[in-house]
Amino acid sequence: MCLIHGEGDGEGEGEGEGITGLSLNPPTNFATVEEGIYRSGFPRPPNLPFLRSLQLRSIVYLCTEPYPEENHNFLRSQNIRLFQFGIEGKREPFVPIPQETVTEALKVLIDVRNHPVLIHCKRGKHRTGSLVGCLRKLQGWCLSSVFEEYQRFAGAKSRITDMRFIETFDVTWLRQCLYSIIYRYQGYSSNKRRLMYREESVHKTRIASS
Amino acid sequence: MCLIHGEGDGEGEGEGEGITGLSLNPPTNFATVEEGIYRSGFPRPPNLPFLRSLQLRSIVYLCTEPYPEENHNFLRSQNIRLFQFGIEGKREPFVPIPQETVTEALKVLIDVRNHPVLIHCKRGKHRTGSLVGCLRKLQGWCLSSVFEEYQRFAGAKSRITDMRFIETFDVTWLRQCLYSIIYRYQGYSSNKRRLMYREESVHKTRIASS
Repeated sequence: MCLIHGEGDGEGEGEGEGITGLSLNPPTNFATVEEGIYRSGFPRPPNLPFLRSLQLRSIVYLCTEPYPEENHNFLRSQNIRLFQFGIEGKREPFVPIPQETVTEALKVLIDVRNHPVLIHCKRGKHRTGSLVGCLRKLQGWCLSSVFEEYQRFAGAKSRITDMRFIETFDVTWLRQCLYSIIYRYQGYSSNKRRLMYREESVHKTRIASS
Repeated sequence: MCLIHGEGDGEGEGEGEGITGLSLNPPTNFATVEEGIYRSGFPRPPNLPFLRSLQLRSIVYLCTEPYPEENHNFLRSQNIRLFQFGIEGKREPFVPIPQETVTEALKVLIDVRNHPVLIHCKRGKHRTGSLVGCLRKLQGWCLSSVFEEYQRFAGAKSRITDMRFIETFDVTWLRQCLYSIIYRYQGYSSNKRRLMYREESVHKTRIASS
């Protein structure tokens, strides 16, 4: 994300306005997870100018419902790719989050070719929080920090079932993939190391280990 | 930040461990604000390996108390520059946040030469939240989104005085500086535009407008 959003050359001067004079309205529960990875609740039409400023390359959408036409049109106009991983969001009757679905979503997330990417569900609390929690585990964060972050977004709506899912989520296979990653140094301000994820090399690893 | 932290080549395999086998412990209330800008509560010794993984170039410290020797040593060993902007953190007796101090801190924040930068105070709630809130205003976020973010970190400890400070904080002068910014396109995955802040050009603007 560029530090200062906006497309223009600085015409706006009013309070609460961007340098284009446009007041930016991020989706509810919006935050940066990592460089190139964002999270939020469902983006509504007033949030689209803000989303445009992120110059997204893809969206990871975690609901089972079809994507609304208006959002679809936005994605088409911005050439943004939609990855839908339908996860049931209702608390009752309780349907466990499928581990394979989260693994597939993680594969999309850690592939920098999909960045910048926005993860969202409906409120950006439970499904998004669970996926981000699993990403943090993969990154090696201790569980107390993973839960602190989950609770910061879910607040009073925090679910013990989500936290249990994160705790028991097995990152071994994905970590195995990481053994075959390609690190690339990019000459970008500092010694920055990025993860390049290659489907082929992962497949080779699976075959080799089976 | 690199997506996957750690220095090694992937020896660790345990649950909750990074690819180096090290469990990373971010400081309390840690989050990414923007690419190259992080926020947190006070970093304690167990958090230093995580901070190392961020490859910080500077820290913006918002308390009046001197920086602890252990943290100072860490900064020295990592060649991290400390910018201290002492702001009183006590609720009683109420001392207003000085506008000039926040402006100076913002100047450090928006200067990409200081990135990656970590902002922290004691709990990462009030002083850090107020500074980040002013940064969001400068970015043109609408106030409701600025307050939502502030409250996500401050929770039940949210202070109306901080939110009033953010609301009345005048970004006009800093925005004026932005008219003399230098946008630079960096050939880094997408058309990414970054803000380069130059003291000289800002001074010229001040002189010209006075």
